[in-house]
Amino acid sequence: MVYAIGLMSGTSLDGIDAALVEISGKNETTAVKLIDFLTVPFSEGTLRRIREALSLESSDVEKICSLNIELGECFAQATLAICKQAGIASTDLAFIGSHGQTIFHIPFARDTLYASTFQIGDPAVICERTKTTVVSNFRERDMAVGGQGAPIVPYSEYVLYQKPNTTRLLQNIGGIGNVTVIPKSGNINDMIAFDTGPGNVIMNELCLYFFNQAYDENGTYASQGKVSQALLEELLAHPYIQKPYPKTTGREDFGKQFTTALLEKWSLVPKDFIATATMFTAKTIAKAVQPFIQGETELIVGGGGSYNQTLIAMIKAELPEVKVMIQEEIGYSSEAKEAIAMAVLANQTLQHCPGNVPSATGAEKAVPLGSITYY
Amino acid sequence: MVYAIGLMSGTSLDGIDAALVEISGKNETTAVKLIDFLTVPFSEGTLRRIREALSLESSDVEKICSLNIELGECFAQATLAICKQAGIASTDLAFIGSHGQTIFHIPFARDTLYASTFQIGDPAVICERTKTTVVSNFRERDMAVGGQGAPIVPYSEYVLYQKPNTTRLLQNIGGIGNVTVIPKSGNINDMIAFDTGPGNVIMNELCLYFFNQAYDENGTYASQGKVSQALLEELLAHPYIQKPYPKTTGREDFGKQFTTALLEKWSLVPKDFIATATMFTAKTIAKAVQPFIQGETELIVGGGGSYNQTLIAMIKAELPEVKVMIQEEIGYSSEAKEAIAMAVLANQTLQHCPGNVPSATGAEKAVPLGSITYY
Repeated sequence: MVYAIGLMSGTSLDGIDAALVEISGKNETTAVKLIDFLTVPFSEGTLRRIREALSLESSDVEKICSLNIELGECFAQATLAICKQAGIASTDLAFIGSHGQTIFHIPFARDTLYASTFQIGDPAVICERTKTTVVSNFRERDMAVGGQGAPIVPYSEYVLYQKPNTTRLLQNIGGIGNVTVIPKSGNINDMIAFDTGPGNVIMNELCLYFFNQAYDENGTYASQGKVSQALLEELLAHPYIQKPYPKTTGREDFGKQFTTALLEKWSLVPKDFIATATMFTAKTIAKAVQPFIQGETELIVGGGGSYNQTLIAMIKAELPEVKVMIQEEIGYSSEAKEAIAMAVLANQTLQHCPGNVPSATGAEKAVPLGSITYY
Repeated sequence: MVYAIGLMSGTSLDGIDAALVEISGKNETTAVKLIDFLTVPFSEGTLRRIREALSLESSDVEKICSLNIELGECFAQATLAICKQAGIASTDLAFIGSHGQTIFHIPFARDTLYASTFQIGDPAVICERTKTTVVSNFRERDMAVGGQGAPIVPYSEYVLYQKPNTTRLLQNIGGIGNVTVIPKSGNINDMIAFDTGPGNVIMNELCLYFFNQAYDENGTYASQGKVSQALLEELLAHPYIQKPYPKTTGREDFGKQFTTALLEKWSLVPKDFIATATMFTAKTIAKAVQPFIQGETELIVGGGGSYNQTLIAMIKAELPEVKVMIQEEIGYSSEAKEAIAMAVLANQTLQHCPGNVPSATGAEKAVPLGSITYY
């Protein structure tokens, strides 16, 4: 077992997630244990500069050139902070896996644009400040073999969640919902991952609109409302929900604009509106995972939505034959999952082992991901 | 000995230089032999997109995201092209060292901008297309330890040009002139590198203005003119020439604007003007290297200026105690020098050995440069 750190900074810009793990083995023999976890928010200035760099209108080459180094310093600081919290020195680490900050993603080529993805946060800076080897830029290699560079976590999910004779459905409920299917065969090539549809995004927009709340804490509003069958039916007819996988969606499909249109068309009591949106998410998840239920099946829910008790109860009601649990019930941390995945991927790369799951990303083959900056 | 390729794409945007070498050893024992060389020009579309990406006005995050991959494909194609030319398979290569295309460089921090440098040309794409391990992004690590990330070639120059009991002055004459001093001690820590001043830039501007020629071929115009002592004196009084090293300059100091001002102030016969500019470059070089002349001393001239016979004759006259030669006279290729350096640096990195020269870049210490993308 060696110490390693995984660093993740998501598109939500909540800050840098740092997971300190103990890790050993490789491929099927990988064993990972979460030792400590920390989220370091960005300073206001850094946050502003990230927003500028990821916008088509305000970005330019100078800003991106500088921000790449600035974020390298931020990732290094997050590493040093979690080491301090855990009482170890950064030189005790065997390696760091750093996802970087995604500032752009072009999933498919069009016109003169190449399919591409763009993560920044200079590994050389992280390496020097922490005196530790860094593995970074995981997504490009998958795209170089025809994958979409996303999702990036299934390999780690396979390593962490695979259970003999059990189909495990890992449902993440962030703004958007996505599921990873680990089939009972245990064969990584049979894994499937896709976006189920909206996660919390519609509920959150409604909470903001009606109650000036960022989200429906514990699902309390939804629990006090009544589902409108008419609205629910309309929502379930959405083309994305009807579409078979593989498929991906985003906030651009189910975000503010979508919710505003609903609010204009439907006049419902606020809590009924929220209850209906909650049921919509529950139904889309149930519908999405239905084809994969086979014998002993567990649905493990993570992400912010896993703390919405009304949503979880609805999912349970929709899937009576499935054992529905949240991450914490099986001893995992939902918030640390992606950061842990970066340590798992780096561990694979350093041993020249693959880290993508072709059946999830669409890649032609499994390849080691990322570049290594040795200290 | 293994086969390796060095790839360089300079700021002049002439295209991708690919050097196929045989290389062995590391540090002082490094041995490199140039096997083949090729320059692959960029397509018009790629060239336009590079120009857009490096301009503050026209760059944006989408263009840079895409171009990183497009250039990765270009670098891969250049690799495959030189392999074909040399009659080997890319899988015969032990590794590729790729400099990437510099699209921005901020040598010193200012306001909210970090000292930073930005090379693109995705190594994962090069790695997959050539089925070969790639080392890339050499400059960031030097900057992470306080260096300027430039010059990047002195380590390779040390390996290639060091000669017992001889001081060697490697003078490159491109648009700007720069010199690397390899002291007779053979101690890498005593190496010095700096810009001597204008190289061909003023001569070229004058040739374009007077004769609509890109440059003074063989120095013919200069050989037919007469040096104006008055203009020469004014030029030699330029603050940059008087300043002690370390120092760097660029086209922004001695380019079109500078030359236009000279043309407005001085009315000379065209060939006298060119002869004077040529003598100016010769004198700045002589003045710059004077302090380093010690015992057996050789000045080895490379770059476009090395083919200007009038300039070379003037330098020889200025430095009677120095043996002045051009690269080809000692069996080296001037045009392949930087691409070869990328193979030398990659070779160092793969063996966890340093590649920067702190006395040249200002770095606090010698460090391995770049990140490794293993095939």
